[in-house]
Amino acid sequence: MTNLFFNKVSIIGVGLLGASFALALRENGLCKTIVGTGRKEDNLRRAKERGIIDAYALDVRDICEDSDLILLSTPVGAFRDIAVRIKDILKQNAIITDVGSVKGKLVHEIESLMPERVYYIGSHPIAGSDKSGIDDARADLFDNARCIVTPTEKSNEMAREKIIYMWRRFGARVEVIDPFIHDEIYAAVSHLPHIIAYTIVNTIGDIDSKYIEYAGQGFKDTTRIALSSPEMWRDIVIHNRENLLRLLDVFKENVDRIKRLLEKKDSEAIKEEFKSARGLRERLQ
Amino acid sequence: MTNLFFNKVSIIGVGLLGASFALALRENGLCKTIVGTGRKEDNLRRAKERGIIDAYALDVRDICEDSDLILLSTPVGAFRDIAVRIKDILKQNAIITDVGSVKGKLVHEIESLMPERVYYIGSHPIAGSDKSGIDDARADLFDNARCIVTPTEKSNEMAREKIIYMWRRFGARVEVIDPFIHDEIYAAVSHLPHIIAYTIVNTIGDIDSKYIEYAGQGFKDTTRIALSSPEMWRDIVIHNRENLLRLLDVFKENVDRIKRLLEKKDSEAIKEEFKSARGLRERLQ
Repeated sequence: MTNLFFNKVSIIGVGLLGASFALALRENGLCKTIVGTGRKEDNLRRAKERGIIDAYALDVRDICEDSDLILLSTPVGAFRDIAVRIKDILKQNAIITDVGSVKGKLVHEIESLMPERVYYIGSHPIAGSDKSGIDDARADLFDNARCIVTPTEKSNEMAREKIIYMWRRFGARVEVIDPFIHDEIYAAVSHLPHIIAYTIVNTIGDIDSKYIEYAGQGFKDTTRIALSSPEMWRDIVIHNRENLLRLLDVFKENVDRIKRLLEKKDSEAIKEEFKSARGLRERLQ
Repeated sequence: MTNLFFNKVSIIGVGLLGASFALALRENGLCKTIVGTGRKEDNLRRAKERGIIDAYALDVRDICEDSDLILLSTPVGAFRDIAVRIKDILKQNAIITDVGSVKGKLVHEIESLMPERVYYIGSHPIAGSDKSGIDDARADLFDNARCIVTPTEKSNEMAREKIIYMWRRFGARVEVIDPFIHDEIYAAVSHLPHIIAYTIVNTIGDIDSKYIEYAGQGFKDTTRIALSSPEMWRDIVIHNRENLLRLLDVFKENVDRIKRLLEKKDSEAIKEEFKSARGLRERLQ
């Protein structure tokens, strides 16, 4: 248990996930001090006032030096630069993890940047939303959420177990998956749907943006994720682009098939397409 | 007020909308007797047991003869045949309406099928969901929902006003729109998103259906409408196919544009695409 205790934790990017992570650490008594950094001082000040973090600095190097755990919770596009900037000042046995939606190559890159005896273990809690600020942060955000942990063959076993234990303490259902497999899965069940949700809304914009006022609950649900942060999702889709380009082709084939069936007025085949989709969707509650 | 009272109302298709319509009529004291018909006797029996309808018959001709109001609440593909089957037995001054998601040509067809002094006024309450049975029916389903009423230049004024009054009594926010404009709008904000939701799920099925188990809340919301009735939606997309074919082309251009930007790794332009979508989506709560 002493080993599982983090003396000082640094949160890089104090948004919905970073702030919820800080609250969950405190709630579970897993650390003494939490420091944060980010781009907006105003946000950091509010996070401190609310007791989410104990202190903050604007330069990431000023908060990481003597940390036992560093959380990367910025958009994933910033991870590599942050890793480069902090790698020389980290203390021995420091553990780095993250809450990013992309793993794959990025995990291997960050791992290989780290000096000996600094351990990076990738994490992806499936607990994000279209919200992105500290106002929606909660200590129980990860409770009962799935959390994918993506160690590599080089990962330090103690660091990996600490990270898994920590997420379990937060109530998450931890699953260990290869970083590249992770990216294949989440390209399909998360990144593609985000691209498509944005695309549906832009299609309305192309036709007549006033039409959106007529939308009902179905449209609202289908495009809720188009409210998500453009910066965050830009980074995700760029980093997972190879999987997404492949998937977009499969998706386009599906759209073209429906289009051909509509052109032919093949109502039986259209019903079968819809039925097979419903059958698969029913596997989720 | 005497004029607004319907002595006998016939519900053709006692599902979520038909049953909710019956409950709303009763709740608002707008009719004496409600009779229903549909394909499944078992469902009609349950509807009667629950007091949603007072009686039922399996042949539509057996329930319409002396009705003051007839509601078409089957899948829209059945409307025309039903109209043909009942047109000769309807009493003078009977009003027909519906809850279908397609208007356009269909409204003109049904109107022209009706004998003199039988009045068809199309309605589309935006209150459907992926549910379709009487278990989810509620008297207040239409309360605060938008309801599009689509009279033509030939519509009888008294019948139109009665239908509008009725929906307002149910609490609906009535808007009168030309049937063809209605179909253009709802192709964009409802029918296309349904097709795409089904298509996203089928794309997962093509890649690896086991991946669906990893889906989070974003995927669930985006594809909730893929749980909708395949028969109902097959009918809707077939009837609104010309608008949808045009829209699918615009949608595909949007998908192709994102794909090209991803290929070029043009992260700035991708962010702008996402931003413009978010900006438009923010107009809805």
